[in-house]
Amino acid sequence: MQTTFSHTDIISITDFTASQILYLCEAGRHMHDLEKSGKRYSLSDTCRFRSLASMFYEPSTRTRASFITAMRELGGQSDGFSGTEGTSVMKKETIRDTIMMMGANHFDVIVMRHPLDGSLQWAADISASPVINGGDGKNEHPTQALLDLLTLYMLNNNNLDGISIGFGGDLSHGRTIRSLSLALSHFKNITIRWAAEDFLGMPPDLSDMLARRNVKVVREAAVKDVMKQVQYYYMTRPQLERMEGISQARIIEMMRLYRIDLQKVEGLDVKILHPLPVNSEIAEIDYQVFFSRAQSFFKQAEFGIFMRKALLYEMLKDGDYIHFNDSLPQKLCEGNNRLPRRIHEDRKHDMFIDKITEGVVLDHLKPGLRRDIDDVLGLEDKGYSCITAAITGKKNPFLKTNLKELTERELKSLALLSPEPTVNYIRNGKVTEKFVYLLCGNTNCITRIIPEDVPPRFYNDEGILRCRYCRREYRVINRKVSPGELEDYRRAIPQAILPVEQH
Amino acid sequence: MQTTFSHTDIISITDFTASQILYLCEAGRHMHDLEKSGKRYSLSDTCRFRSLASMFYEPSTRTRASFITAMRELGGQSDGFSGTEGTSVMKKETIRDTIMMMGANHFDVIVMRHPLDGSLQWAADISASPVINGGDGKNEHPTQALLDLLTLYMLNNNNLDGISIGFGGDLSHGRTIRSLSLALSHFKNITIRWAAEDFLGMPPDLSDMLARRNVKVVREAAVKDVMKQVQYYYMTRPQLERMEGISQARIIEMMRLYRIDLQKVEGLDVKILHPLPVNSEIAEIDYQVFFSRAQSFFKQAEFGIFMRKALLYEMLKDGDYIHFNDSLPQKLCEGNNRLPRRIHEDRKHDMFIDKITEGVVLDHLKPGLRRDIDDVLGLEDKGYSCITAAITGKKNPFLKTNLKELTERELKSLALLSPEPTVNYIRNGKVTEKFVYLLCGNTNCITRIIPEDVPPRFYNDEGILRCRYCRREYRVINRKVSPGELEDYRRAIPQAILPVEQH
Amino acid sequence: MQTTFSHTDIISITDFTASQILYLCEAGRHMHDLEKSGKRYSLSDTCRFRSLASMFYEPSTRTRASFITAMRELGGQSDGFSGTEGTSVMKKETIRDTIMMMGANHFDVIVMRHPLDGSLQWAADISASPVINGGDGKNEHPTQALLDLLTLYMLNNNNLDGISIGFGGDLSHGRTIRSLSLALSHFKNITIRWAAEDFLGMPPDLSDMLARRNVKVVREAAVKDVMKQVQYYYMTRPQLERMEGISQARIIEMMRLYRIDLQKVEGLDVKILHPLPVNSEIAEIDYQVFFSRAQSFFKQAEFGIFMRKALLYEMLKDGDYIHFNDSLPQKLCEGNNRLPRRIHEDRKHDMFIDKITEGVVLDHLKPGLRRDIDDVLGLEDKGYSCITAAITGKKNPFLKTNLKELTERELKSLALLSPEPTVNYIRNGKVTEKFVYLLCGNTNCITRIIPEDVPPRFYNDEGILRCRYCRREYRVINRKVSPGELEDYRRAIPQAILPVEQH
Repeated sequence: MQTTFSHTDIISITDFTASQILYLCEAGRHMHDLEKSGKRYSLSDTCRFRSLASMFYEPSTRTRASFITAMRELGGQSDGFSGTEGTSVMKKETIRDTIMMMGANHFDVIVMRHPLDGSLQWAADISASPVINGGDGKNEHPTQALLDLLTLYMLNNNNLDGISIGFGGDLSHGRTIRSLSLALSHFKNITIRWAAEDFLGMPPDLSDMLARRNVKVVREAAVKDVMKQVQYYYMTRPQLERMEGISQARIIEMMRLYRIDLQKVEGLDVKILHPLPVNSEIAEIDYQVFFSRAQSFFKQAEFGIFMRKALLYEMLKDGDYIHFNDSLPQKLCEGNNRLPRRIHEDRKHDMFIDKITEGVVLDHLKPGLRRDIDDVLGLEDKGYSCITAAITGKKNPFLKTNLKELTERELKSLALLSPEPTVNYIRNGKVTEKFVYLLCGNTNCITRIIPEDVPPRFYNDEGILRCRYCRREYRVINRKVSPGELEDYRRAIPQAILPVEQH
Repeated sequence: MQTTFSHTDIISITDFTASQILYLCEAGRHMHDLEKSGKRYSLSDTCRFRSLASMFYEPSTRTRASFITAMRELGGQSDGFSGTEGTSVMKKETIRDTIMMMGANHFDVIVMRHPLDGSLQWAADISASPVINGGDGKNEHPTQALLDLLTLYMLNNNNLDGISIGFGGDLSHGRTIRSLSLALSHFKNITIRWAAEDFLGMPPDLSDMLARRNVKVVREAAVKDVMKQVQYYYMTRPQLERMEGISQARIIEMMRLYRIDLQKVEGLDVKILHPLPVNSEIAEIDYQVFFSRAQSFFKQAEFGIFMRKALLYEMLKDGDYIHFNDSLPQKLCEGNNRLPRRIHEDRKHDMFIDKITEGVVLDHLKPGLRRDIDDVLGLEDKGYSCITAAITGKKNPFLKTNLKELTERELKSLALLSPEPTVNYIRNGKVTEKFVYLLCGNTNCITRIIPEDVPPRFYNDEGILRCRYCRREYRVINRKVSPGELEDYRRAIPQAILPVEQH
Repeated sequence: MQTTFSHTDIISITDFTASQILYLCEAGRHMHDLEKSGKRYSLSDTCRFRSLASMFYEPSTRTRASFITAMRELGGQSDGFSGTEGTSVMKKETIRDTIMMMGANHFDVIVMRHPLDGSLQWAADISASPVINGGDGKNEHPTQALLDLLTLYMLNNNNLDGISIGFGGDLSHGRTIRSLSLALSHFKNITIRWAAEDFLGMPPDLSDMLARRNVKVVREAAVKDVMKQVQYYYMTRPQLERMEGISQARIIEMMRLYRIDLQKVEGLDVKILHPLPVNSEIAEIDYQVFFSRAQSFFKQAEFGIFMRKALLYEMLKDGDYIHFNDSLPQKLCEGNNRLPRRIHEDRKHDMFIDKITEGVVLDHLKPGLRRDIDDVLGLEDKGYSCITAAITGKKNPFLKTNLKELTERELKSLALLSPEPTVNYIRNGKVTEKFVYLLCGNTNCITRIIPEDVPPRFYNDEGILRCRYCRREYRVINRKVSPGELEDYRRAIPQAILPVEQH
């Protein structure tokens, strides 16, 4: 069992082992016990000379307030921003630079929320101080999962085995239920029951994954059927903003069936959980339930304090504060997304290289992009008078230019226009380098945002290629890449997300 | 004389007795004396482990800064928000949930400003921690009144008797002058003089109330006439935003007469007070007065610190911090706005009940609302195929439906459309319940905001029906309510605003 | 050498002597040494009972965070605002009133950023607590200059003599390079080299001034030529927003030449500095440079902490906290911008006075303003039925009115419409007073903003008339002012910016 989280980044709930989860739940329970025995501030020497940076690029009251309270009760101080209105200068400042600035400002730990998936892994890569993910896009919010686990642990007599839980609201679009159910799958005899419209139901990939991990997942016909058979019912907000094409009337009708109201809970000993906030217009939980014995989500909210306090305590209790390291390691600007292709030197008649002796040939481009690629590479602005370029009407248009090389931004822009371009560098009439440029397909992934300059990087997760940042699976689609080339590439990249060596 | 404010909510200046006001003035004077003798931080152990939540749903610099300074000097910490830009998630979060979250975050005291009248009484009802009203809509701002009283108390040799004060600016639209003059009416030999345009003058109801309480109120012809006869002149900002239909030229002309300038104060020993900020475009106080001996509003601003420090000290000095109570008492979801009507069982031919055996009949509706009521009750969405409904062209249209019952939100929506509906529940062809649904008529009252789910509640203030939240008088207008029914209802409701039993 | 900054306002880097700069650099080095030897909080008793007001009328993360960190490490607390969204009430509140409010809230030191030039001098004039300029419009940002100096001092072995520095990016529009180079001109053997487009190059007036102060300034053909010959290269952001009429293509081409990339720094021992943030879209520094040995701007950012910590330490280490002074000295509402003109009593036939016996005559007005001036003086609203006014078609239109006198706001409004009006007060048919009303010509100067009511004031800087607030030179253009009159005026005004006597 890991007993230290000193200087550990908290990025994804999937990074936690069962024993780590139990360790933190115990630590959280300890914080709870201190509070209930009137010792709220008994650890207030821990962080007396420590400071928390709260960097909320998206508004937050709840998560932010919870971290700040936890830090305050540990004797530490907080500063930062919530929303970017008051920091418009940051609009054109990279996350990299902002993280470095926070280091320069001697913050000992950073909690950050950002709309881009993978932004927190990148922040952790850059930062010498430990980083806590307060929500990266639609990706992860690990301290929410941890506080949910603490709540279940405490309600279930300091145990996470044998839990029977219902899920409601929106199982399809939110990350909360996915994170919590995967975390629960570490434990024994877990039963999950749910009832929801098809389009709000549990995604099949999640069901399958849970089944493989011996979690019993049962779909019931009605909410009431779920309620009767579970100890805990975890309600979530229907994410209306992601339900295009569904009429208002349909949602109202739907909510009548799925709203948690007194009728559904009365006579039962079920505890209603919710990550909060409840949407007061939809009212996925009826107001009367707030005043009933079933309501357990405010307890759950307070457990957020205990979990965050436990986490900060474990992260900061040991050792001295971190001195700012004013240099960034070279490794941080290196991607590993260039899938090398073998160069067939004997192909004498290769029609696209014999016309130039120095330059770059781009192959396997999408048709019809000639002008866009001109713009992206700024061919005209660069004044290359002797460009020889052509994009044929054939399946594999290509483009030749006497540019000596392409910058990382140019390659990325190119890949955004035409995924998986093959890049050939020509020297003395010969191809000296040939690779496919891979870029994560998740449109909200930080590696795709040009001005952020995050190097695309992948790792080999038991045969599955994953983006280091947003962790989405990547499938190579380039027809010309041979299985051998792909396998060589896979072997060459890391087998896991390891910290970038630094400092 | 009350000598403790421990865990006391501060909602309205009208809740304070003369002795409480004097007690707090003395406490404020003590804070003043500490400051002036160089002991600003001598009480900094008081709140060493206490925290203040500053929840400003409307922007504030002055009041917020003043509370935070007071808390800082008492050794405590503050966190919260000012404006809701950085907390957009809150748009659909109820005050109830936000208050509970603040409790979950272990705040020991809450100061809150909110645009809805009565929102602070509701917050106090919900919160286990004491709540201070930092301004609820156009309703109350009691710490402003208290600091004004402290200022007068100090300037007047530690005494509030015998004060002679002038009022200027806008006596009609602001709450400042109303609050202050009512508070002063507790004391002896108070004289109020004023000179203003008719439409900015003292409202007759206030004049009358003050007269009944033995305050001498005198209207003078000109500001200068007031100035000559008073010790203090309390200027306020003309609330232009509430003066529709008044031309710009009229206002400029008006300000020439009523603006406080050097000419008006020179040679006099009058002290100018103002709640601040002065509107720099209107300049209701000329800039030269800022630099004159008459200017006393910056002293008054500092007295805001002393009063708030005294208040926080009195509220927090005793006892331990409050543990978060994660449940809300059932009582909080109960309104008392259903005025029961007697059911005349013998009325055999009552035309509107004999047609249905199970359902709801709504009577005394405003004409022409058939479609709106359909929408509000979602009759179509609910798929009630067998609705029998009719709204006649008569004075009292009614509507029958086979809905089993109406939710609180539906009743409230209905009452917003058509005030004082009579609701009849029919079971087995008989009326089993019959009541008039009352809803506060103040359009800015929190009880009228559907998603907030605040139960409408009234109390009987010496025969006057008042809204528990915004405290506006309510007059029953339903013609059919008999004096006996009304009197029974009045007797059944509370005689005062008492705390909701909780925790 | 000044060894105390107790209660000293920090307004402009040009106010610092060489010895003061060296003293602060030594103090900053001391803070650096404490940090590096693990004593970050060893001075945390200094500001235990001190508080910093951070008033950022324009958004800031960097400067604000840096001051707050510095204060925190010295044991003090901070509060304030960043951006004015959360403080909309302030829209119509003057800086004067806000500063007074901050005093009433017992802040011991104020750091402020404001969009108006000269706003910080005005804040310092008003405030009893010392004020630090965190940026006033496009005018000054002295703590940036001080931290730049500290960085050079430290990198250059605790010495500012003999520095050889390159400047890049935008030498023409920013204040950073101007401030730094002027500050460096205090020291020996300074060499500045630069290469930039003409329109971004060093302004001739700055070159000349530096040359006079024995700084060697050399324009090179290319960035690389600069790099080779300097120890430090200070890059700045091209201020695109000020480059109207320059095409996007032109800027891209330009950046190719001037962007700092690996090619330009490789093989050299140059250290790249930058005030940050780097604009991530323009990328005036290529991302690879961030990960190279040449990158020194993050070190520079941390030196911002050391410098601000040194400054706050020096300002607050001595003496007790300042008690709020609730009155503003009379002197603060006095301008000195009325250039007296001699009255020629014998001019019998002066056509513009003989028509009225009591009133004001305005002369030397711009043609065509009759209606505007009517509006500004509100002649119609004031109901002056017997106005006699005329504006001739001649070069010097004039206007007569029977207004007794003009308010300061009226005079200022008049001068905004028609610079340097001559004002004649007529009593008993005779001119009793005659003056030219001077108003700073800098359109962003705080003295020109009517509702702020800042009195226009000038000082005589070795023969040059300067605005006290924005410090721009003022040249009298009124043809009628005689050299003698001008000289008399110059002699009568202060010879330097001295604190306004107060408190």
